[in-house]
Amino acid sequence: MAEKFVSERNIRFLLYEVFDVLELLKYPYYAEHNKEVFDMVLDTALRIGKDMLYPVLDEMDKDQPELVDGKVKVHPVVREFMRECGQGGWIAADAPFEHGGQQLPVMISLVSNFIFAAANYSASVYPALTTGAARLITTFGSQELIDTYVPKMFNGEWQGTMALTEPQAGSSLADITTTAEPTDKGYYKIKGQKIFISASEHDGVENVIQLLLAKIRGAPAGVKGISLFVVPNKRIGENGELVPNDVNVTGIYHKLGYRGCPINQLSLGENDDCRGWLVGEPHKGLMYMFQMMNESRIGVGMGATAIATAAYHAALEYAKQRPQGRRLTSKDPTLPQVPIIEHADVKRMLLFQKSVVEGSLALLFQCSKYRDLEMVLEGEERNRYSLLLEILTSVVKSYPSEMGILSVSQGLQCLGGYGYCDEFPLEQYYRDVRIHPIHEGTTGIHGLTLLGRSVTRNNGKAFQLFVEEVSKVIGTAEKDTELKPYAAQLKAAVDRLKAVTTYLVGLAIKGDAELFLADATLYLEMFGIIAIAWQWLLQGITVQEALGSGPIDADLNFYKGKMYALRYFFAYELPKIEVLAARLEKSDGLTVEMQPELFEG
Amino acid sequence: MAEKFVSERNIRFLLYEVFDVLELLKYPYYAEHNKEVFDMVLDTALRIGKDMLYPVLDEMDKDQPELVDGKVKVHPVVREFMRECGQGGWIAADAPFEHGGQQLPVMISLVSNFIFAAANYSASVYPALTTGAARLITTFGSQELIDTYVPKMFNGEWQGTMALTEPQAGSSLADITTTAEPTDKGYYKIKGQKIFISASEHDGVENVIQLLLAKIRGAPAGVKGISLFVVPNKRIGENGELVPNDVNVTGIYHKLGYRGCPINQLSLGENDDCRGWLVGEPHKGLMYMFQMMNESRIGVGMGATAIATAAYHAALEYAKQRPQGRRLTSKDPTLPQVPIIEHADVKRMLLFQKSVVEGSLALLFQCSKYRDLEMVLEGEERNRYSLLLEILTSVVKSYPSEMGILSVSQGLQCLGGYGYCDEFPLEQYYRDVRIHPIHEGTTGIHGLTLLGRSVTRNNGKAFQLFVEEVSKVIGTAEKDTELKPYAAQLKAAVDRLKAVTTYLVGLAIKGDAELFLADATLYLEMFGIIAIAWQWLLQGITVQEALGSGPIDADLNFYKGKMYALRYFFAYELPKIEVLAARLEKSDGLTVEMQPELFEG
Repeated sequence: MAEKFVSERNIRFLLYEVFDVLELLKYPYYAEHNKEVFDMVLDTALRIGKDMLYPVLDEMDKDQPELVDGKVKVHPVVREFMRECGQGGWIAADAPFEHGGQQLPVMISLVSNFIFAAANYSASVYPALTTGAARLITTFGSQELIDTYVPKMFNGEWQGTMALTEPQAGSSLADITTTAEPTDKGYYKIKGQKIFISASEHDGVENVIQLLLAKIRGAPAGVKGISLFVVPNKRIGENGELVPNDVNVTGIYHKLGYRGCPINQLSLGENDDCRGWLVGEPHKGLMYMFQMMNESRIGVGMGATAIATAAYHAALEYAKQRPQGRRLTSKDPTLPQVPIIEHADVKRMLLFQKSVVEGSLALLFQCSKYRDLEMVLEGEERNRYSLLLEILTSVVKSYPSEMGILSVSQGLQCLGGYGYCDEFPLEQYYRDVRIHPIHEGTTGIHGLTLLGRSVTRNNGKAFQLFVEEVSKVIGTAEKDTELKPYAAQLKAAVDRLKAVTTYLVGLAIKGDAELFLADATLYLEMFGIIAIAWQWLLQGITVQEALGSGPIDADLNFYKGKMYALRYFFAYELPKIEVLAARLEKSDGLTVEMQPELFEG
Repeated sequence: MAEKFVSERNIRFLLYEVFDVLELLKYPYYAEHNKEVFDMVLDTALRIGKDMLYPVLDEMDKDQPELVDGKVKVHPVVREFMRECGQGGWIAADAPFEHGGQQLPVMISLVSNFIFAAANYSASVYPALTTGAARLITTFGSQELIDTYVPKMFNGEWQGTMALTEPQAGSSLADITTTAEPTDKGYYKIKGQKIFISASEHDGVENVIQLLLAKIRGAPAGVKGISLFVVPNKRIGENGELVPNDVNVTGIYHKLGYRGCPINQLSLGENDDCRGWLVGEPHKGLMYMFQMMNESRIGVGMGATAIATAAYHAALEYAKQRPQGRRLTSKDPTLPQVPIIEHADVKRMLLFQKSVVEGSLALLFQCSKYRDLEMVLEGEERNRYSLLLEILTSVVKSYPSEMGILSVSQGLQCLGGYGYCDEFPLEQYYRDVRIHPIHEGTTGIHGLTLLGRSVTRNNGKAFQLFVEEVSKVIGTAEKDTELKPYAAQLKAAVDRLKAVTTYLVGLAIKGDAELFLADATLYLEMFGIIAIAWQWLLQGITVQEALGSGPIDADLNFYKGKMYALRYFFAYELPKIEVLAARLEKSDGLTVEMQPELFEG
């Protein structure tokens, strides 16, 4: 297996040409780094992806984790990779020096996480979850918690997780019932059930640290009574040894895809001996968890983009090599067949994939850059990027997740019957990528979050900032002859989005909450398409500059290909917003009105 | 497992109320039947689906067929079901009495095939393939071939298949290289490789009869040199015993879904002892095969619709039972949670599924009715239905296949994390349904077929007939106050389709074949949406009549639900044609122009 699963050229294009990561070096926080460091990260991540992760992609899917006597056995590469990630500093890549991190820009950790996920999504989840969990502790936990847990998580010996979902509370965290009973010994006694917890027990690490939501006895009802706890599967005994902490795996899910990573059902405190340590203050757990969830949500968008990217490269490779049929203009059966990439419809399918995956990756870089700037700026400037991140989180989570499914499906389609068979990785990608519109908030939930919260909060400040950011790119693109028509098209689309938003917010002001949010998923879809168009136009600006300065031959094809993908997106994808906008402005309440019993029969 | 996988009410609605199958009884060909017979077919099919097929849905997926020593072992239910289908007359249901069939309307065999496929798609394929293969022999074969093979196929002892695809010739049948060497003994010696042949060897039957395409030595190049042969896996020896016919299974595919039915790779004539019998005349094989392919294509659309229907009912069931969250208007966390079917976004997902699956099923009934009328009419009238079938075949194959994927995906989404796990059947449906845009011609091929052949042939006669059929329904609907706006919307859509067609055909006339067909897949998509809207409006007419005559209470909900699904389709789906039309009329040749090397980088 030596197939390509990412485009190094495209990563370099986004990192250095479009988003200019080196610009960050002027800030003291990043000043110790330089381009050589970034290049090394990229090269090493590619090597790990190619040599360690991609070769076991199929194996990890076929030999899925099983639960035996309460233990979960995973593929041996998990241990190897977690060690590599610990020793290589990957888990702590963007953590600050003070916590033992590498203090690298998030754009750089995006690169490595993206490469790992494209090589083998299941494997990539173990360290990524650990990064997020450790960050929760370093941000909100006491120094004692930090000292106890974070070093072993950063060095890959211990796994971190997030444990939110319960049987009766999936999307509705207000309804969790896991309890935390205070003791006078500095810990709480935890009791409850958690379901769908990724990597929450496995033999690739020495211990698993659950960042877990529970309610302290007597807490207020709903989300205002949720607290955050560190609950290790094994706690540290009196002599520093690890002792069981009454966290029991009661089930393992058999899944459509994403099979290399176990998702477990946990029972905590069955023997009244599960100890948890409060992170930060009581009842603020959900607020804290949102930090990790928002990072995880960007991570989900990244994972979907990565899988769809690998699928795109596999489809492209196949299309170049597979002879089948002849050009429509020369159907003489005595002539040799042509590679299927010569057929317009196959090129259309490939351009669709290219425009989706490269557009999504650009948006991920954009959000990562906002995170990097948020880290080094202060006051109003910092607030600007926080708000932009807030409004874009649902978008950068959902667009790649939903469109990633369609993109992989088109990749599979390029292979015809072979795409449906396990000789090629497409069928696995198709299964793996389906998780993303579900975990870390379903697409429906994100529609409600975007329209019902992010767009409306602070008098629409975040929305206004988003429009400003897009308008800046439009302003630049307008000055370029090639890009001018696309700039005009995007401007019209943004105007349409503004009008639709005003209309919908009007419904909210009138107090019609159900009508206001009835088609929030369509609003999210519309927003997502425009965000990706923005990212294509932004890439177009870089491309036009590069073409203007006479690139070398290999690069000429790369830049020209980018322009075709941009044109594709503006011709085939962006116009779809019109249908969504028209529907959103109609708001006849069809889906609110429809009564459940009318589905009978 | 006692879950619902089809709606009997909806089948009865389409069969008796919308398409009035009893109307066929006036033709002598069907005169021996009556409503009691049809009801009995429906009841029996439901019972077989419920008792025999649905209970092993999961098992057949998990214990997939394996190739051991050249033999393929399948689930024991295959043998049981094939016997049942033979003895119950299901395989020969719509075959004429003279060939030992039941001479039932195709609409009736659609009902049973649909029920079987919804209960267990993989199982349903075995008899369905046999029906098609037997019909090829009865239509084009000699009396000797008919007598030798058909009775055992109809009674379920022997399996029929269609063996077209070869390693170097998937979508391009012109390139098949399997050879047939004439002998002076009445048979040909067959030599070659076939791939992706469903059910081409298994232990659920005594013998498998391949309807196989090959080229007689010296035949013209391309599709004009293809002949059709009967090639049994075991031929009849001198004493009437079955002897091996040198047909060897060299591989079995491991597939994403559709796992209960083996797809094999075959090697024919390895020992120079594979005998095939010519069907009809030499070099006419492709024309003959198209009969079976066209039936199979309708069958593929039916299979996709059936799987998506089962997924819809599973999602609906879950949505009614799963409590999660609260209404937007009463978010008090101390109140009990509501079933998720109360949420507008879940209702939207369910309405999407309902509109797709019930719209698709209506189109399948429509095509089946055309087949029934084609059977009993003569001359110009008969020709009318043949042409309508020709133009609709690609549509009724592709719309359900493509939209079935999205429909099942939305069904899976309704279940959240559980949809991704194998405790519920959604993840299997999601895998099973993905085959349909691939087999019996990919969606891309059908786009080319529809626009490049069916629409343009005979001076656009078939297209004109299609417009007439739709216009008839519009004309009736216009007279109903409730339906009038939908009639107007569909009329505008048909006008748009006419304009786009004229524009595209103009390109063909100018000789620009590549530009003409560049976006044929989008044309197919547009055509499909309009065809389904037509079927919804047709159903709407029946619904309005029923509502006008004061239906009983249970029926009131059913009819009202139909109106919501109709409204949904016209509000959310039909408007999508505008984006497609706009793109088709632009035809800037983006995908023709894009060069393969520009994908590099």
